[in-house]
Amino acid sequence: MPSNYRSFRHSVPWLMLLLEAVFIVGFYFVGSGDEVIRSSISYADFQDVNHMMIFGFGFFLTFLRRYGFSSTGFNLLIIALGVQCSILTEGLLPFQHQSEDKDVLKTITKAAVSMTAVVISTGAVLGKANPVQLILMTIVEIMFFHTSRWINNTFLMVQDGISMMHVLLFGAYFGLAVSSRFSEPSPRSEKKASTPKSDLLAMLGTLFLWVFWPSFNSVLVTADRNKAVYNTYFALAASAVIAFVLSVLTTKDGKLRMAHIHSAVLAGGVAVGYVAASIDYPWIAMILGLLAGVITILGSYCLERCWNPVLKIHDSAGIHFTFGLPSVLGALAHVVIFVIKSWNHGPRLGYFVMFHIGAFCVTISVALITGFITGLILNLKLFQTIPVSKYFDDLFYWEFPHLAVGF
Amino acid sequence: MPSNYRSFRHSVPWLMLLLEAVFIVGFYFVGSGDEVIRSSISYADFQDVNHMMIFGFGFFLTFLRRYGFSSTGFNLLIIALGVQCSILTEGLLPFQHQSEDKDVLKTITKAAVSMTAVVISTGAVLGKANPVQLILMTIVEIMFFHTSRWINNTFLMVQDGISMMHVLLFGAYFGLAVSSRFSEPSPRSEKKASTPKSDLLAMLGTLFLWVFWPSFNSVLVTADRNKAVYNTYFALAASAVIAFVLSVLTTKDGKLRMAHIHSAVLAGGVAVGYVAASIDYPWIAMILGLLAGVITILGSYCLERCWNPVLKIHDSAGIHFTFGLPSVLGALAHVVIFVIKSWNHGPRLGYFVMFHIGAFCVTISVALITGFITGLILNLKLFQTIPVSKYFDDLFYWEFPHLAVGF
Amino acid sequence: MPSNYRSFRHSVPWLMLLLEAVFIVGFYFVGSGDEVIRSSISYADFQDVNHMMIFGFGFFLTFLRRYGFSSTGFNLLIIALGVQCSILTEGLLPFQHQSEDKDVLKTITKAAVSMTAVVISTGAVLGKANPVQLILMTIVEIMFFHTSRWINNTFLMVQDGISMMHVLLFGAYFGLAVSSRFSEPSPRSEKKASTPKSDLLAMLGTLFLWVFWPSFNSVLVTADRNKAVYNTYFALAASAVIAFVLSVLTTKDGKLRMAHIHSAVLAGGVAVGYVAASIDYPWIAMILGLLAGVITILGSYCLERCWNPVLKIHDSAGIHFTFGLPSVLGALAHVVIFVIKSWNHGPRLGYFVMFHIGAFCVTISVALITGFITGLILNLKLFQTIPVSKYFDDLFYWEFPHLAVGF
Repeated sequence: MPSNYRSFRHSVPWLMLLLEAVFIVGFYFVGSGDEVIRSSISYADFQDVNHMMIFGFGFFLTFLRRYGFSSTGFNLLIIALGVQCSILTEGLLPFQHQSEDKDVLKTITKAAVSMTAVVISTGAVLGKANPVQLILMTIVEIMFFHTSRWINNTFLMVQDGISMMHVLLFGAYFGLAVSSRFSEPSPRSEKKASTPKSDLLAMLGTLFLWVFWPSFNSVLVTADRNKAVYNTYFALAASAVIAFVLSVLTTKDGKLRMAHIHSAVLAGGVAVGYVAASIDYPWIAMILGLLAGVITILGSYCLERCWNPVLKIHDSAGIHFTFGLPSVLGALAHVVIFVIKSWNHGPRLGYFVMFHIGAFCVTISVALITGFITGLILNLKLFQTIPVSKYFDDLFYWEFPHLAVGF
Repeated sequence: MPSNYRSFRHSVPWLMLLLEAVFIVGFYFVGSGDEVIRSSISYADFQDVNHMMIFGFGFFLTFLRRYGFSSTGFNLLIIALGVQCSILTEGLLPFQHQSEDKDVLKTITKAAVSMTAVVISTGAVLGKANPVQLILMTIVEIMFFHTSRWINNTFLMVQDGISMMHVLLFGAYFGLAVSSRFSEPSPRSEKKASTPKSDLLAMLGTLFLWVFWPSFNSVLVTADRNKAVYNTYFALAASAVIAFVLSVLTTKDGKLRMAHIHSAVLAGGVAVGYVAASIDYPWIAMILGLLAGVITILGSYCLERCWNPVLKIHDSAGIHFTFGLPSVLGALAHVVIFVIKSWNHGPRLGYFVMFHIGAFCVTISVALITGFITGLILNLKLFQTIPVSKYFDDLFYWEFPHLAVGF
Repeated sequence: MPSNYRSFRHSVPWLMLLLEAVFIVGFYFVGSGDEVIRSSISYADFQDVNHMMIFGFGFFLTFLRRYGFSSTGFNLLIIALGVQCSILTEGLLPFQHQSEDKDVLKTITKAAVSMTAVVISTGAVLGKANPVQLILMTIVEIMFFHTSRWINNTFLMVQDGISMMHVLLFGAYFGLAVSSRFSEPSPRSEKKASTPKSDLLAMLGTLFLWVFWPSFNSVLVTADRNKAVYNTYFALAASAVIAFVLSVLTTKDGKLRMAHIHSAVLAGGVAVGYVAASIDYPWIAMILGLLAGVITILGSYCLERCWNPVLKIHDSAGIHFTFGLPSVLGALAHVVIFVIKSWNHGPRLGYFVMFHIGAFCVTISVALITGFITGLILNLKLFQTIPVSKYFDDLFYWEFPHLAVGF
């Protein structure tokens, strides 16, 4: 097996080189010209999203005791590849307006936001997929996500900002579908566990995400950005409170569980994504944040006991309840709030509701179907699935000269 | 005792739920309308303060060897609750102008700045107060702080920006007064100590605070913001240098002590807070930074040997010399610099000095008195004070599945 | 030896105090007046550079197993001293325009950018130089760097922005020259190695640098800042990909080496520094990033095996291949791209090429010569070189009360 793997490992870099060459050639044909127009997005906004992707998710996923190098390292690799791929895909799809094409900062910010889908999906297969599988998943997912957005924008007349917010929904369900095709890890594996140190680093990542979530929800909003910030902040605050409340209530002895805090403090930000700029009163955002926190913690309880064992899905980072369920709640809230706000608009209301529910269904169906197919393909013998005994192990990918010296 | 505590633990979440419900109802009545005016504060400024609170203080307080989860986790919980409480309290106090009420970003930034008081106070009882005590302290302190500000603004005609800067002074002395009512930890307790890893994480937090302190000092300044940034930076640089100087001079063998560095590098930023925008020459800021560093390190020496044992105060994170003493120096410097600058203004000068010294005395008296009363109330049997043997211990609040597997 | 060292240690603080006093007096004479003009640099831009210096480099250098306190602590000390020194030096050199002198935020940002040279140089002597040596090196290097810039600006008519970008080149070769005069550490020293935890913290620092590099390359650019950001981002992305590719190809068993990732992911940002704002098509930046990554990893292979043992240079943090070689590539690319872009401009082209190659040679010569002399002086008996057995050891500088308690 090792010698087998060694030859496989030596084929990985050629895949990456090939992709990078394709990207460079692609940019040669697609790439922006030398005229630069004033950007509608400030550099600071782009930086916030970039931070969130690189540190936030990088460290959010370091909770596994022996997978810190891979979590942060592969996260960087995937984002570096995925952002280039995303810009090319958007450039090739026919729905891009000419003028926007020149706004380089907006292009790159949208690419970074799209990458959230991939980063979330990798959470579901964290420690189970090898780099080749991760890279292929990145390329395939980013293409399907843009296709799903294109369907939403073109046929269902969903605004670009809203169709972008489907990114979390898409990422979570695509990841779950891919994950369902991977072998389950041994239930007694010690490597699945965290250490206090790795939990603290994951807390650092979670706090990064918590702080930057208002940026994420407001970066592509054109009007009322301050309102989006304000509402997201309150939703996050409410879900942070409810995370502590429910963690105490659902554990034995009334102690707090770090895994609950990691996932539920973010739920409010996820749920409020669709409606951050259209909620008029902060108490609505707070209630949404509360509900999102409740759904996340109860979801983690139900899914891990009832749902996942039955469907044989192993969701390493718990992305289903961290990002999936709050997104569903958010999409629902979006429709409900719109209905309440424009109750007397009659027929337009009906269309809106239909189109939005349609967009939701399209996104989730595309995610599940393409994710399932991707999962099937990635588990072909060709891609040398990792043996279950080597799951969650940095030693399998990284040199550890430290071992020779002693820790 | 444990079974006793278990039932107590199960009552904690209901307190939080109740508070969150009160906040939601409060926002229903107070909350901002749907008109949003242009904010005088940019989103990036708000983010800097938000960062500083969540990461900066979160990791600044992780130096205890077994209290990392609680330091970062409870910090998040307290800020999530406190910001909501602060916005409500400000909305209810009669001194709010109508127009400012609509500036949502300014409202939330001011709430975050006010929370510095609470976060600093928690440093004094770090590891000694249970979550119920921390939450009650948060609510009570934020209310008293706004009351003290209201007295300063209304009766002593102190500018809002200056009365906001009293936040560090208030936080430090309120925290000390509360702390004086808690039992002292056993002097031989190993858990009071830090590990090299926890010291390094606390250094991460300190560096965050160091970098963001110019934002903190300039965020509520309306004119000459660049000057406030510049002066704060030089004061911080000077106190970083003096921290290393005095740490070598005051320790045995001329080695550096990490605890000195953690506290003294920030002293300059604290001291220059009141006058950052009104100092005309950077060398004045540098001298102020130097003096602040000296006061902090000598203060840590004197307070820990002479003052605290006599008054039986145990100050976990050393907030008295880190934030308290440099604030006092800053308030003094404020008066001195004003007197020098407007020496020939006659009677107006006398009023100014009187009012500013009055505001200082009001703030510190309100902090000490209300802090002492809060400390007394929090140590009622009702709130189940933690036994001294369980001080500074994450195990008391958090599940540690890691223990089963081995670290 | 220890008693000898103790007396030496007690002389260190007086040096720092003296320097700080000189700076304060210097600012008294040089310091900016009370008129403040609108800054051409926003506060957020300054903050990004400040972050990058304090966290980015602070944690980038924490990879040594027992040198975390010193890496982050001395980095802060050096920056605090160096920024003040840099502002004074710039103020005293005759090439400063009067109007710019008042732009306090630009002054401080340029000082922070200049400090990159020193921070990179300390990487070469990391763990080998004592604080006195580090401080003297800081002062001397910042003066020589500004002198070299002054020569470039005045005699070779290089633009200020370009001569500033020589900072990485200067820092790397100055550091190497200084390092050549220090004794080599014992090849079997365990302390030279990293631990998985320290490597992960260094990864945190690397990610900070990766995220902030577009800010660094664009902060002093006046026109086309968005283009500088865009190109730097693509160069960084390409070098992140190539880092993973070559790390797999050059190690035994096709595993990844963390040290490769740390250095090569940044290579693209370094190389594209000179031309970030003048590249019109992102694919050029990507190719440059690819080449930089290749040069860094192949450089690390060749330098560590062939070059360094022959020249008896020990480069602790590998700054030669991380910052030195990509800078050389960048300077070369700058000339090549300019030649291609203005092929039909005839004589002006010849001057430009000559001047730019001249500036490159001046910078690198000044760096090597002054670095060598500085290295010689710093190794005088007066400065109490650390014995080789005490290299890379926090215990030599910091109190470790932790040891009494057990880790």
